[in-house]
Amino acid sequence: MSEADALVVFTPSGKRGRFPRGTQLLQAARTLGVDVDSVCGGRALCGRCQVLVMEGDFPKHGVSSHADHLSPLSAVEQAYSERRPLPAGHRLSCSTQIQGDLVIDVPASSQVHRQVVRKAADARPITLNPLVHLHYVEVAEPDMHDPSGDLQRLLVALNKEWNFGPLRADLPVLQKLQAALRKGEWRVTVAVHAGTQLIGVWPGFHDRVYGEVAASSGAMNPQIRFGEDLMSRVSYAMMHPGGAQQMTDAVRGALNALAADVAREAQIEVTDILELTVVGNPIMHHLLLGIDPTELGGAPFALATDSALGLHASELGLQLHPGARVYTLPCIAGHVGADTAGMILSERPDLSEKLTLLVDVGTNAEIVLGNSERLLACSSPTGPAFEGAQISSGQRAAPGAIERVRIDRDTLEAKFKVIGSNLWSNQPGFDEAVAATGVTGICGSGIIEVIAEMYLAGIITQDGVIDGELAKRSDRIVQTGRTYAYTVHRGTPVLQITQNDVRAIQLAKAALRAGVALLMEHIGVDHVDRIRLAGAFGSHIDVKYAMVLGMIPDCDLFNVSSAGNAAGTGARIALLDSDSRKTIEQLVRRVEKIETAIEPKFQAHFVAAMGLPHSTEPYTQLRKVVTLPAAKPPATRAGSSARSRRRAGG
Amino acid sequence: MSEADALVVFTPSGKRGRFPRGTQLLQAARTLGVDVDSVCGGRALCGRCQVLVMEGDFPKHGVSSHADHLSPLSAVEQAYSERRPLPAGHRLSCSTQIQGDLVIDVPASSQVHRQVVRKAADARPITLNPLVHLHYVEVAEPDMHDPSGDLQRLLVALNKEWNFGPLRADLPVLQKLQAALRKGEWRVTVAVHAGTQLIGVWPGFHDRVYGEVAASSGAMNPQIRFGEDLMSRVSYAMMHPGGAQQMTDAVRGALNALAADVAREAQIEVTDILELTVVGNPIMHHLLLGIDPTELGGAPFALATDSALGLHASELGLQLHPGARVYTLPCIAGHVGADTAGMILSERPDLSEKLTLLVDVGTNAEIVLGNSERLLACSSPTGPAFEGAQISSGQRAAPGAIERVRIDRDTLEAKFKVIGSNLWSNQPGFDEAVAATGVTGICGSGIIEVIAEMYLAGIITQDGVIDGELAKRSDRIVQTGRTYAYTVHRGTPVLQITQNDVRAIQLAKAALRAGVALLMEHIGVDHVDRIRLAGAFGSHIDVKYAMVLGMIPDCDLFNVSSAGNAAGTGARIALLDSDSRKTIEQLVRRVEKIETAIEPKFQAHFVAAMGLPHSTEPYTQLRKVVTLPAAKPPATRAGSSARSRRRAGG
Repeated sequence: MSEADALVVFTPSGKRGRFPRGTQLLQAARTLGVDVDSVCGGRALCGRCQVLVMEGDFPKHGVSSHADHLSPLSAVEQAYSERRPLPAGHRLSCSTQIQGDLVIDVPASSQVHRQVVRKAADARPITLNPLVHLHYVEVAEPDMHDPSGDLQRLLVALNKEWNFGPLRADLPVLQKLQAALRKGEWRVTVAVHAGTQLIGVWPGFHDRVYGEVAASSGAMNPQIRFGEDLMSRVSYAMMHPGGAQQMTDAVRGALNALAADVAREAQIEVTDILELTVVGNPIMHHLLLGIDPTELGGAPFALATDSALGLHASELGLQLHPGARVYTLPCIAGHVGADTAGMILSERPDLSEKLTLLVDVGTNAEIVLGNSERLLACSSPTGPAFEGAQISSGQRAAPGAIERVRIDRDTLEAKFKVIGSNLWSNQPGFDEAVAATGVTGICGSGIIEVIAEMYLAGIITQDGVIDGELAKRSDRIVQTGRTYAYTVHRGTPVLQITQNDVRAIQLAKAALRAGVALLMEHIGVDHVDRIRLAGAFGSHIDVKYAMVLGMIPDCDLFNVSSAGNAAGTGARIALLDSDSRKTIEQLVRRVEKIETAIEPKFQAHFVAAMGLPHSTEPYTQLRKVVTLPAAKPPATRAGSSARSRRRAGG
Repeated sequence: MSEADALVVFTPSGKRGRFPRGTQLLQAARTLGVDVDSVCGGRALCGRCQVLVMEGDFPKHGVSSHADHLSPLSAVEQAYSERRPLPAGHRLSCSTQIQGDLVIDVPASSQVHRQVVRKAADARPITLNPLVHLHYVEVAEPDMHDPSGDLQRLLVALNKEWNFGPLRADLPVLQKLQAALRKGEWRVTVAVHAGTQLIGVWPGFHDRVYGEVAASSGAMNPQIRFGEDLMSRVSYAMMHPGGAQQMTDAVRGALNALAADVAREAQIEVTDILELTVVGNPIMHHLLLGIDPTELGGAPFALATDSALGLHASELGLQLHPGARVYTLPCIAGHVGADTAGMILSERPDLSEKLTLLVDVGTNAEIVLGNSERLLACSSPTGPAFEGAQISSGQRAAPGAIERVRIDRDTLEAKFKVIGSNLWSNQPGFDEAVAATGVTGICGSGIIEVIAEMYLAGIITQDGVIDGELAKRSDRIVQTGRTYAYTVHRGTPVLQITQNDVRAIQLAKAALRAGVALLMEHIGVDHVDRIRLAGAFGSHIDVKYAMVLGMIPDCDLFNVSSAGNAAGTGARIALLDSDSRKTIEQLVRRVEKIETAIEPKFQAHFVAAMGLPHSTEPYTQLRKVVTLPAAKPPATRAGSSARSRRRAGG
């Protein structure tokens, strides 16, 4: 290194060094350990090594234009930019030589391990570090003087450029290799999985890798037709010969359809999909794997396996790339599945000293409580009431469903909003706005709100009874048999909250709350620092009302938020950042599993949690936001039926 | 260890030690590192740990009966022997305690790494060390207080007893595991592949492992219908859309049928087959793998891969156990396949300083020459003449085919034997003996003999011309057009050797001999120490006649022998002794590959080898056995057509 060498500074890393003039810019970056991507190995094909040339400001040289300090646009760069225009100031670092002092910015899109920013402000970014990498290589042609297999020459070329260890090839790669090499004139792109296995080969240069969510799609749980909840699905498997296989086929068929959907949306072929990560509850997990879920239907709720699995997509009947791999996140216990593992990976409660409560409310509630010291998890049998099932006017979240409700504390009149409109029902134009769908029912978050509002308006007592006395004050309170109901909507159909509806919600929230209480008790705390509500229900619920009902423990409302589709985010993290797989596999081993079915105190917590809100806690935070009715001792009479509904979720 | 401890001597290892009375015999053996098998982990189920109690002869104790020195027959031994009687003097070492000094013989059948003796006297025994092992385990039942997957509890049990490292499970094992555990009441037998992967699971105790050839079966090459030789099969693949897939299906179908045959013969289910090893020429190898063989049909004859492969049988459409694995031996070059690797593994020329020539004559001849210092291999395009194809009276070896011929040196009369009878054709009763089949043609070894005998009787000159002058002496020599033929059999059909037949054999043997000469020249020797002839043809040929024709170089006839189905033996070694796989994988890397097609001297060697026998060598060894005609300069005119037939074998 001499004084005559040029100084090159890379941003944002700040790494710097002096290089002889004529040094290839990509080589200089690599020498300094600057993270610059390249699929094509410096052949000006992939454009991944693009850098932005910044104005240099080097007093020693006085005013200088960066143009002088770099070699002029080369023929290969020219050819590249004709195919894909280079933005102003961008150069291909593989085809550019250093001619003088420079400041070079490596944009995020050119970094191998770039970070993917997640939407939520409080979410950690995901480091892009996928398990599957594409590599373009030029392979030596066969030579009769030194015969060797095409695969062996490919491996020599790969190892020379990318320095792998021993590599093996999938059989379909072997089957396609010779044709691909000859079609690509001894240039191919290969997909390497985990640095050890060739899983795909294409003639010439092939560049299809996604670091962002290129497309997303969803489907109703295809098991619905086999039963509304977990237990009825397991029953289906037990009662119908071949029933488990039917459900397996349904799950796999749904995944194939979703894969086709997202491929279409992203304008790629479904055979361009090289990896898939999967989360799901234990039943779904086992069904996808083709494992009969019968054992999960009864004590001791034994999983076939709780480990993470790496499989071939073809083993699961998934029609992606022939070499595509599937990674399933680990399960935790018989009722705490890979979806909970995904939630933990997304939320990482172990990274903070603050005690975080994670709740994913579906037909079962998965509950995780912990911090950097301990992690506990359980599942609680809430049943499907929170999703609108088993509620007289309940329905799934869809246009026409009531999702927001307010009840006037004096007149006891209700106003509401339905999905698909932003107007309150008492605002002008509401009827026209909902004319297309009508007002068809009340979705889960609407049910929470209306019952919480009924409680706050004094329509429901602390032990959950609709106060018939109020029928004298408002015709919205009506007698139905020996109990009363509250009319939310007077249209067609009439939408009411009945005494049974209140009881169903009380049972569900008591189950949820008992699970939370159990974990808090195990850790020995009477409050949590932070609450994250995951899943579709957790995303739509107004956390204030969840707290009014006592679904969640007392906590500063500022620290209660939705975690969105946390399980799905966990799957996405596992897909994009392969190191995270080891993380979650190790993390789940630390999780202390609490089986609510055999915890002697679960029943007591359940009974104690029947009241509105949870009767033994101050809810100091909540009082800042709403005016709670005066506390009375909790009712206990509804608790006894809880055990008979045990494990009705799924 | 005290003087009061009992002395136990194990034979045949000679290992000995003193143990406290009451020590379990199996434990004592393991402590001393004595090789005693056990599948069931000492539960008196498998009977693998049987030992023979020898009469003790310990002067210190005077006369003693061994009965006193061992614990009496235990209840579990009793139970075992009711199911499978124990031979006299045999005990289950897992259920027997040492009570005094003993000499214990561990029979070969109780050794894990026992040796399997091969039939041929000069063959090395095979060490039994299969890659797949069965293990019987008792698994803890699931516990809701400490939930874990069934697989995880199985792995804990396996590791406790057998001390594996990390184990993974095939998906079909996961799918069957829960049912197997419950059906077996938490006792299962698992098959572990390579100490790393669970590939099978059975409820309870399952004991099916074969160390011997339990059964064998063969089939005609199913590719025959796609063309008689390699080139025509490759042509089929090139000319017919889907032709390669058709041939792949045929090969796989034939393997499935063979597997079903051997399973039936061995009285097991085909699903009890857990491992399969495969050898074959490169075309067959590629077709089995589903790789289009087109590239092997023309220069530069590039293999898709030359590595050994470990695959799932299911990937190849083979219907064995769902977890069955397939191991294919490595290929060496475009014309030197896994069959040659098998031959090298069977014969191990590298273990001796003596220079060994291995020849496998099929439609191509694979030739290996080497010793502990060097190993060379090539393939030579002999064509199918040696197998009776392209010969006017030729046929495949089958009942009715002439396989032995003698010609009277004076009368020029022929006598012969046919397959299926031990009588010479001039012996009484011959006609009755062959009445069922008739005399239908001449098989490969018969053709070699008749042409060699014709040469020895002076009917063929040294340059391969049938001497028309002899028609005056014998009506067996007849004119056909401008050349002559020799009548071997006057029946129906008339079986003759024509001038064209002699030319075809000359071309084939010249190609074989030129390949051998090339390897000898590369090593720089003019003789070899030992010759082994492999394959069906090599097994049936009389080596003396092969030498008369100059097919093989001069060598003491005592050191020329048949290697039998050496490629098949290599596959068997790879199956039974998993360590041998590493051996052959490393050995093939040492092989120097000679490509006859581009060796400038091949043509010269070919021309020089046309004469009978090889004209430039003394054949001193042969002269001890037969009287050779006086030497004349070799003919050269037939050599020019050899290149046009290049690569016609397969």
